[in-house]
Amino acid sequence: MIRVLVVHGPNLNLLGTREPDIYGRVTLADIDSRLVSAAQARGAELRTFQSNGEGALVDALHDARQWAAGVILNAGALTHYSYALSDAIAGIGIPVIEVHLSNIHAREPWRHTSVIAPVVVGSIGGFGWRSYLLALDALLGHLEERRG
Amino acid sequence: MIRVLVVHGPNLNLLGTREPDIYGRVTLADIDSRLVSAAQARGAELRTFQSNGEGALVDALHDARQWAAGVILNAGALTHYSYALSDAIAGIGIPVIEVHLSNIHAREPWRHTSVIAPVVVGSIGGFGWRSYLLALDALLGHLEERRG
Amino acid sequence: MIRVLVVHGPNLNLLGTREPDIYGRVTLADIDSRLVSAAQARGAELRTFQSNGEGALVDALHDARQWAAGVILNAGALTHYSYALSDAIAGIGIPVIEVHLSNIHAREPWRHTSVIAPVVVGSIGGFGWRSYLLALDALLGHLEERRG
Amino acid sequence: MIRVLVVHGPNLNLLGTREPDIYGRVTLADIDSRLVSAAQARGAELRTFQSNGEGALVDALHDARQWAAGVILNAGALTHYSYALSDAIAGIGIPVIEVHLSNIHAREPWRHTSVIAPVVVGSIGGFGWRSYLLALDALLGHLEERRG
Amino acid sequence: MIRVLVVHGPNLNLLGTREPDIYGRVTLADIDSRLVSAAQARGAELRTFQSNGEGALVDALHDARQWAAGVILNAGALTHYSYALSDAIAGIGIPVIEVHLSNIHAREPWRHTSVIAPVVVGSIGGFGWRSYLLALDALLGHLEERRG
Amino acid sequence: MIRVLVVHGPNLNLLGTREPDIYGRVTLADIDSRLVSAAQARGAELRTFQSNGEGALVDALHDARQWAAGVILNAGALTHYSYALSDAIAGIGIPVIEVHLSNIHAREPWRHTSVIAPVVVGSIGGFGWRSYLLALDALLGHLEERRG
Amino acid sequence: MIRVLVVHGPNLNLLGTREPDIYGRVTLADIDSRLVSAAQARGAELRTFQSNGEGALVDALHDARQWAAGVILNAGALTHYSYALSDAIAGIGIPVIEVHLSNIHAREPWRHTSVIAPVVVGSIGGFGWRSYLLALDALLGHLEERRG
Amino acid sequence: MIRVLVVHGPNLNLLGTREPDIYGRVTLADIDSRLVSAAQARGAELRTFQSNGEGALVDALHDARQWAAGVILNAGALTHYSYALSDAIAGIGIPVIEVHLSNIHAREPWRHTSVIAPVVVGSIGGFGWRSYLLALDALLGHLEERRG
Amino acid sequence: MIRVLVVHGPNLNLLGTREPDIYGRVTLADIDSRLVSAAQARGAELRTFQSNGEGALVDALHDARQWAAGVILNAGALTHYSYALSDAIAGIGIPVIEVHLSNIHAREPWRHTSVIAPVVVGSIGGFGWRSYLLALDALLGHLEERRG
Amino acid sequence: MIRVLVVHGPNLNLLGTREPDIYGRVTLADIDSRLVSAAQARGAELRTFQSNGEGALVDALHDARQWAAGVILNAGALTHYSYALSDAIAGIGIPVIEVHLSNIHAREPWRHTSVIAPVVVGSIGGFGWRSYLLALDALLGHLEERRG
Amino acid sequence: MIRVLVVHGPNLNLLGTREPDIYGRVTLADIDSRLVSAAQARGAELRTFQSNGEGALVDALHDARQWAAGVILNAGALTHYSYALSDAIAGIGIPVIEVHLSNIHAREPWRHTSVIAPVVVGSIGGFGWRSYLLALDALLGHLEERRG
Amino acid sequence: MIRVLVVHGPNLNLLGTREPDIYGRVTLADIDSRLVSAAQARGAELRTFQSNGEGALVDALHDARQWAAGVILNAGALTHYSYALSDAIAGIGIPVIEVHLSNIHAREPWRHTSVIAPVVVGSIGGFGWRSYLLALDALLGHLEERRG
Repeated sequence: MIRVLVVHGPNLNLLGTREPDIYGRVTLADIDSRLVSAAQARGAELRTFQSNGEGALVDALHDARQWAAGVILNAGALTHYSYALSDAIAGIGIPVIEVHLSNIHAREPWRHTSVIAPVVVGSIGGFGWRSYLLALDALLGHLEERRG
Repeated sequence: MIRVLVVHGPNLNLLGTREPDIYGRVTLADIDSRLVSAAQARGAELRTFQSNGEGALVDALHDARQWAAGVILNAGALTHYSYALSDAIAGIGIPVIEVHLSNIHAREPWRHTSVIAPVVVGSIGGFGWRSYLLALDALLGHLEERRG
Repeated sequence: MIRVLVVHGPNLNLLGTREPDIYGRVTLADIDSRLVSAAQARGAELRTFQSNGEGALVDALHDARQWAAGVILNAGALTHYSYALSDAIAGIGIPVIEVHLSNIHAREPWRHTSVIAPVVVGSIGGFGWRSYLLALDALLGHLEERRG
Repeated sequence: MIRVLVVHGPNLNLLGTREPDIYGRVTLADIDSRLVSAAQARGAELRTFQSNGEGALVDALHDARQWAAGVILNAGALTHYSYALSDAIAGIGIPVIEVHLSNIHAREPWRHTSVIAPVVVGSIGGFGWRSYLLALDALLGHLEERRG
Repeated sequence: MIRVLVVHGPNLNLLGTREPDIYGRVTLADIDSRLVSAAQARGAELRTFQSNGEGALVDALHDARQWAAGVILNAGALTHYSYALSDAIAGIGIPVIEVHLSNIHAREPWRHTSVIAPVVVGSIGGFGWRSYLLALDALLGHLEERRG
Repeated sequence: MIRVLVVHGPNLNLLGTREPDIYGRVTLADIDSRLVSAAQARGAELRTFQSNGEGALVDALHDARQWAAGVILNAGALTHYSYALSDAIAGIGIPVIEVHLSNIHAREPWRHTSVIAPVVVGSIGGFGWRSYLLALDALLGHLEERRG
Repeated sequence: MIRVLVVHGPNLNLLGTREPDIYGRVTLADIDSRLVSAAQARGAELRTFQSNGEGALVDALHDARQWAAGVILNAGALTHYSYALSDAIAGIGIPVIEVHLSNIHAREPWRHTSVIAPVVVGSIGGFGWRSYLLALDALLGHLEERRG
Repeated sequence: MIRVLVVHGPNLNLLGTREPDIYGRVTLADIDSRLVSAAQARGAELRTFQSNGEGALVDALHDARQWAAGVILNAGALTHYSYALSDAIAGIGIPVIEVHLSNIHAREPWRHTSVIAPVVVGSIGGFGWRSYLLALDALLGHLEERRG
Repeated sequence: MIRVLVVHGPNLNLLGTREPDIYGRVTLADIDSRLVSAAQARGAELRTFQSNGEGALVDALHDARQWAAGVILNAGALTHYSYALSDAIAGIGIPVIEVHLSNIHAREPWRHTSVIAPVVVGSIGGFGWRSYLLALDALLGHLEERRG
Repeated sequence: MIRVLVVHGPNLNLLGTREPDIYGRVTLADIDSRLVSAAQARGAELRTFQSNGEGALVDALHDARQWAAGVILNAGALTHYSYALSDAIAGIGIPVIEVHLSNIHAREPWRHTSVIAPVVVGSIGGFGWRSYLLALDALLGHLEERRG
Repeated sequence: MIRVLVVHGPNLNLLGTREPDIYGRVTLADIDSRLVSAAQARGAELRTFQSNGEGALVDALHDARQWAAGVILNAGALTHYSYALSDAIAGIGIPVIEVHLSNIHAREPWRHTSVIAPVVVGSIGGFGWRSYLLALDALLGHLEERRG
Repeated sequence: MIRVLVVHGPNLNLLGTREPDIYGRVTLADIDSRLVSAAQARGAELRTFQSNGEGALVDALHDARQWAAGVILNAGALTHYSYALSDAIAGIGIPVIEVHLSNIHAREPWRHTSVIAPVVVGSIGGFGWRSYLLALDALLGHLEERRG
């Protein structure tokens, strides 16, 4: 059975309460349970992790090497400056997909640059919580093709 | 029935023959027929259009206002400098989703900036021809939610 | 009789329907007929041309050399990157006046730079459809002075 | 009766003597009297003011709030760095139109940026002293439309 | 017999009439006939194409894959921003040589950067119409060496 | 009773020992006790928190939503790059005031930019430990006015 | 008795009428009288000065050397480009505190840089008219400590 | 008799008291009287003017056209941003020489750029009050040569 | 006995498994034990610490003040943006030497800038695990000289 | 008889041994003898010079004024920063043609800028040793035309 | 007797023949003999040196430490990039004055930056050969004052 | 026996006399003799070379190909702009190690960039003359490992 890790970065625990105009009213728990169900429906197992600390996120990526086939990562604001996350993605050798709830290119200029984009398989953003769902399909398709 | 336009920009007609290391061996005709089938399976109708000319692409977007519920757009190299396409997207008032075959952030610096990204609903890139398929799901989900 | 060409660039055919907050509700046909009348009232003949394609716009400028005394040009988004239009203006040897409906300096940063501004006689922008009317007066005054 | 203020910034008092290749041989007094006549012909009253001091120009704009319906402003070199003028324009709440004698985009790079452009109604430049005349028409048209 | 395509970009049809100080008085028809003769003298066949439209130029490059051994390209102003041409050159898999009539580095700053230079075999510029002739020799030499 | 959180970022625990020329000889414990007293004197309750970890600081800000009316934040060096802190401030919906011991604009260039400044109520810096005291007054005044 | 000068730069005389969304409805006269009272309550004497002219502001700073113990300065838009004010502050040898009504970092990019910040004791901004009050406390505390 | 104007910009009236480490202990009155004597010794008449206001300095330059053969200008901090002074120098048509007391290139980066340097005859800086004396010799030599 | 702390930043725990083309096959445990032995052979005591968290690394540097004579620091990707580490190094008052396994200047541009380089004694990079060994010699030599 | 100087800059003496993937296996002596023969075949005399020193290259260009009709210059890495060579080319008043073995635009960014390009007649690059041969034809054609 | 070295950098040996519009018709030998005479008249001894090689110029500066009281340096194009000359000036510990014939700020942008300016006593430029003469006076005055 | 070349660039011959605060009082002869001894003690032969000329340094690197196993290079100020040295290092095919006496990152900004860093094995800087000694160990270790 394919196992997938979903990693949520800083401030995503505020989801559903924080700036609903931008991020909507769905909570992180809602998203996580929808993703777990969607994964099950596709014959995969999905675990989730959230932290506001860069180090803990790097640790989680390292740990995923041992058990996960791929990672879906919403790095939050760390997307834009955490070269440590970028190195972790390059170092663990399993596919990582970058996800964003909002369209980061329609917001402040500092959100237009992703320092992790060059080392991920691909990026999906702008579709609210469904960005994660699309990423799950993208990841499973990618893994299937590599096995193929 | 929901109707969708898929627009392919310059050089995408070379697909399957051009730089297969980057773009793979699937032709544009292959992708188009897969997308048409996938749309049918989801109860939607999908038409496709390719041109190497910026003006013809703008015309196609304008025309879509009359009949399509949404657009999936791979603008090719025009992604990076065609403010005319950007204005067209903003002007037609129907949702547009940006698609890329490859991960543009892992390539030359000039491919890292998308001038159309600020005006689309969202972006998907890096998953080869399946990027289009994911975009179809994203678009249908987006339309459903807006209706909802 | 003095003959004048008015050239409208990409997306201006959407006028009156596209983003009315920025561009107003007057259509391009309205503007064109008002300009034709205004020219007649001033003893001049005025023709109009619109295209979404850079090449067709360059062709129209080249063609104007044969019959027009001057050109009024709203290049739309091409204003900001089309060095081909810039070269065409420099090459045809008749006066060109740059026009904008909105105040491009009060909008997105990429609209603040005009690559055609260095080769036109002068620029008028921010007065809605009346920008064209002012440009007509400016052009006729300029031609008169040169003859003078 | 509509009352209009025309403001001339630093060095414009040299007009007619200074660098005639760029600015022509018409003096500021000539321009002012032509503008006063043109305003009268259009049923408006027009006053003019010139100063080489940024503070005095700001004072004049503040004062105009009390009696003028709109302002025509040629800020000279202050156009390119006087954020104090920019704040004054934004603060007085009456429409201001930016004017330049020459085409500032065809000259030195530091003249290509106008820090007041984002807060004016519109800009007109490149037509010599007639730039002011066009601005008068533009201002009267703008005021009429707002009243309309 | 070796077959060669010569492609002329926007505004080159004005040659001989446009800004003769920079571009000389030779027309495009003159250059084309000299090149056809020169090719014949070297045992090659040469066809020429001019368009002011980026899309038509991309189409011509794509088409050349079917019959030409190499391309000589003067992209005019598109040299400086057309990433679509750049992708087309990279995509067609036959050698392309960049040509300029004038020394682009001795002109305006925006002409100093060529976005197609990274994907061509080599560049020749500054020698008027003879730049094309030198490019023909360079292309034939390059093809011979590759066969060799 | 109004409750206030004071947050100290990385390296502020070294206060009183670290670079006394810049930061003085008062320790963090001294500052904290002075602030607690000052808050009491103003009828408020004040708690303090210090961490060298970005994640722990984000956690503390999130937690403050539950019990504090406002936050005084000296983010130390994180001021200049932690977009995660910036997002946390924007997300918690209670007023945050930025504080600096030294005048950051009189030091190294990288200290001149604060990435949290755009999302705080206001900033106070350059007055040593009294910067905090002023921030306390500023925060209480701000809360009073909002209630008012 | 400690004597303090409060200096208001260009456009601050419009306060209370100008852009009330940003600056509030309190007039400059209101602020001045509140500051005079607050100073009296703290045993200090406070004088105020406003000008729209850079030179008059420099003169006022020079003059303050003769009688004032410190200066509170809101330089308005001059904050962002007046190196003459910056030199004046450095030259007079008495402490100056920078004040802003609004949070300049949450507004246009050109307001993010203060050319006087490197030479003042400290900066306070974002608290409306109370920014001045906090600056008065900051200045008196600073003077006391220096005497101490 | 040759007549020369020496113009001192903002803050130079503080000379001798302001930052003596950089500017020395000689006052402006000292410098002026030395220059007047030196001019007399060379058979020339020299007048001096100081102001902290940009407008007054522009006025003084305009006025010099009527009576002076050349100008020696130390624009102080205005050197680095006053395009109005730059335009005034270009406009008056008499030679201007730029002077600095200190070596502006060995100080803060913003002092490295002079916006008036492109329009003066030449520049002299770094030699304390003797910079003015050298400028006097340079100006007289320049005038002599032009007459020559 | 001289005591030394060796600090390894984020992702260095992956050493020996991560991207062996760049980093080799030696593990961090191997390096640590070689360094401990080398230190013993030189009469010094060496302790090592690794963390993926910026806060924990800052804590470790602070703690070293109490017992270590110097620090050898490989900050990993934090090298390039952690001003918090930079402040910590400046704050602890004991010498720190910067180490890199690879030649950071021969890799991606963002690795060319080290924000900690200005506050360390010196830097050594490009020699694989032996970079640490050279740093140990450099640190012991530096300490000896300071004592000397 | 027309006499031509060919100048080779730093490191070109390594040709044939240095990085053959980029520069090929032909030695500089091979190139020189082929050029001498080609010149003879065209009725010209050709001399060659190589040095690794900027000063010696400037000397050689100066010396060429006395006897050569034109120069072919491959300045090697000096192409990208030697303004002294640029001044020498501008100063000697005989035509110089810039040559590169490889396509410098397809290599490292610092090789994309040529500081000598603005002062040469034209540039040829990307054709290996044949770049020199094409330059010889270009130079002879250029000289013939000037005489013409 | 005070001994002075005058150093001329690359291409200055062409003086009098090279681009007379910019540099005049006086030769370097003329300048040198005028300077030697002027020095004698002032009781000083003056030697001159010219080279096109950066290394030889550095050697000359080093050598001057042994016998000269100061140096007058026209570094030619090396002014704009030779950090080796900059280090030599800083290293020799005797005063150096920078000289330019033309006003470098009125020419190409790359001539606006002098990398030696931060380490010289002062700069003089724009007065043709008399720039050297003014520099001689400046140097003698500077030496006298230091002795004083 | 392993043979090593140590190359010292411009101004290093001044060592011991030049700016002792930065570079110490050890002379270059001292360093050279210490390095020769250290090499002998390690069973290697070491030769040294110093020049102030870029060309001579390139020549020395070329020559080293014939006899040396590796090079230790302190390029002085040429470090920051000599792409000719960079090409020489890349061209000779033997390992080169970059050395600096001082910590170049704690000095002027222009010293922060090394154009040779991308092509050397590794860099060592900040340890005074011992930087060379560490480089010797680094080079011998590197050569041993490559042989290994």
